[in-house]
Amino acid sequence: MSPDPAQRPVTVIGLGQMGTSIVTALLAAGHPATVWNRSPDKAEPLVAKGAVRAGSAAEAVAAGPTIILTLSDADTVREILEPVASGLAGRTLINLTTSAPEQSRALAAWVAKQGADYLDGAMMALPETVATPDAFFLYSGPKEVFDAERSMLEVLASAHHLGEDPGTAELYDLGLLGSGYAMLAGFLHALALVDTAGVRPAEFLPLVSRWLHGMIDYIPELAREIESGDYASPASPVGMNRAGVAALIRVSLDAGIDPAVHAALWNLLGQRTADGHGKDSFASVFELLRRRP
Amino acid sequence: MSPDPAQRPVTVIGLGQMGTSIVTALLAAGHPATVWNRSPDKAEPLVAKGAVRAGSAAEAVAAGPTIILTLSDADTVREILEPVASGLAGRTLINLTTSAPEQSRALAAWVAKQGADYLDGAMMALPETVATPDAFFLYSGPKEVFDAERSMLEVLASAHHLGEDPGTAELYDLGLLGSGYAMLAGFLHALALVDTAGVRPAEFLPLVSRWLHGMIDYIPELAREIESGDYASPASPVGMNRAGVAALIRVSLDAGIDPAVHAALWNLLGQRTADGHGKDSFASVFELLRRRP
Repeated sequence: MSPDPAQRPVTVIGLGQMGTSIVTALLAAGHPATVWNRSPDKAEPLVAKGAVRAGSAAEAVAAGPTIILTLSDADTVREILEPVASGLAGRTLINLTTSAPEQSRALAAWVAKQGADYLDGAMMALPETVATPDAFFLYSGPKEVFDAERSMLEVLASAHHLGEDPGTAELYDLGLLGSGYAMLAGFLHALALVDTAGVRPAEFLPLVSRWLHGMIDYIPELAREIESGDYASPASPVGMNRAGVAALIRVSLDAGIDPAVHAALWNLLGQRTADGHGKDSFASVFELLRRRP
Repeated sequence: MSPDPAQRPVTVIGLGQMGTSIVTALLAAGHPATVWNRSPDKAEPLVAKGAVRAGSAAEAVAAGPTIILTLSDADTVREILEPVASGLAGRTLINLTTSAPEQSRALAAWVAKQGADYLDGAMMALPETVATPDAFFLYSGPKEVFDAERSMLEVLASAHHLGEDPGTAELYDLGLLGSGYAMLAGFLHALALVDTAGVRPAEFLPLVSRWLHGMIDYIPELAREIESGDYASPASPVGMNRAGVAALIRVSLDAGIDPAVHAALWNLLGQRTADGHGKDSFASVFELLRRRP
């Protein structure tokens, strides 16, 4: 093995679209790559680019010190790793498979028992954005393991270490996806609303884009209020926002548009009001959502 | 009256926070301003800045050709205008009061009967952002009325004319607010999720901001698919997103977090799947939300 970090060998198990993009990026950066996939034909285009195809999962694990897993789900990770457990000691497993935080925590504990290091990861990317500035990958697990792998990981995407708890990267992943999904659901509902006045999606785009960028600039203020727990004397009180959401729901109903996208927020604002917090900040809705200690 | 458009007199009825900011901006730009409010003390600080206080609503309407209304709701607009109806002929009413689209359409018809022009407006601003680049105001109604008032309106905020239907500005307003509310609800839910791993709001901010900006860059793609009605061979199919939302809901429940913020999207994706559209694009959810002709 060359001491040049750019030349460290990496094994990649799981050659779906993301795994394939990852191997391609590693090879392009000069990393020797060993690959394995349950359906072996997925390896062929990568072998043509210079990857070595392992004959078995055990051979893939044995090929080098660092193993990246990009599989379809957490159960598949277990099915592949458990038969090769005896070969894991001393290696580093970087699991980029989408998993529930509890699954990542359980796998991290199991990997530790085999004498191996574990880093959990979440890929905020599409296959075509791997190794471009549009991608970022999230990691959680021991900081020293992250630091040891960091230069290789930065080949794939900007690499963010979020903490020692192996479940944190998956929680961030879900939090980011959820924030985006909620925004997109609101956008689709809005398109349906303006559609009732004959407004085409392309006409609505410039203003909704401007408005949403402005809202993103506003979320640090919400975060500050939540972090301080001080919801008094707000610029945007629960009661005012409840009236706004009520208007949105009423007009949706009158226009023949399903208002369900906004029902949860309506209920949360109503509950805060019923609890005597109508004059608190909008951000105080967080207190209904958070898990109580 | 001076022929200099920057000097055209304007009457403002309704001196809440937004009305007060608007009068202040008009005075600063050199417009003579007549003001009236049901509780007369609201006028005092503006008189100190050079506004003329009308003694009655009728006097306010008589003071000039252009009347801006910034009142608390559509009912208040009617209560104030109906007794002074005989004085409206030949004037232009610009109604910035938040109203339902149907209320704006009905008021526009009533104003036309009085022989006056009508423009409906929606203020995408806070009182402190009026007359700054952060504010934008939406208008709908006759284009020639908008054009005649435009130079004065641009004093208040960048002015966008959205069409002839007087209800369109209010629909845009609700569509923008709804898109923002949905995003903020998703953000608060995400904070509750990452909070279960001890992540502070300030730690989560940089990545959620990055992710949401990226999602805004993605919405033109959704808009294109909706506009074309072509949901086949998508990069982001209903079924894949349904699995993502399912994971989000399952992990929320396991973590003790209310998943209701994502329930509507979950139902919509499930209905598309049940209808045989699981391989269509995520954007096709719009077809369940839109009003059918």
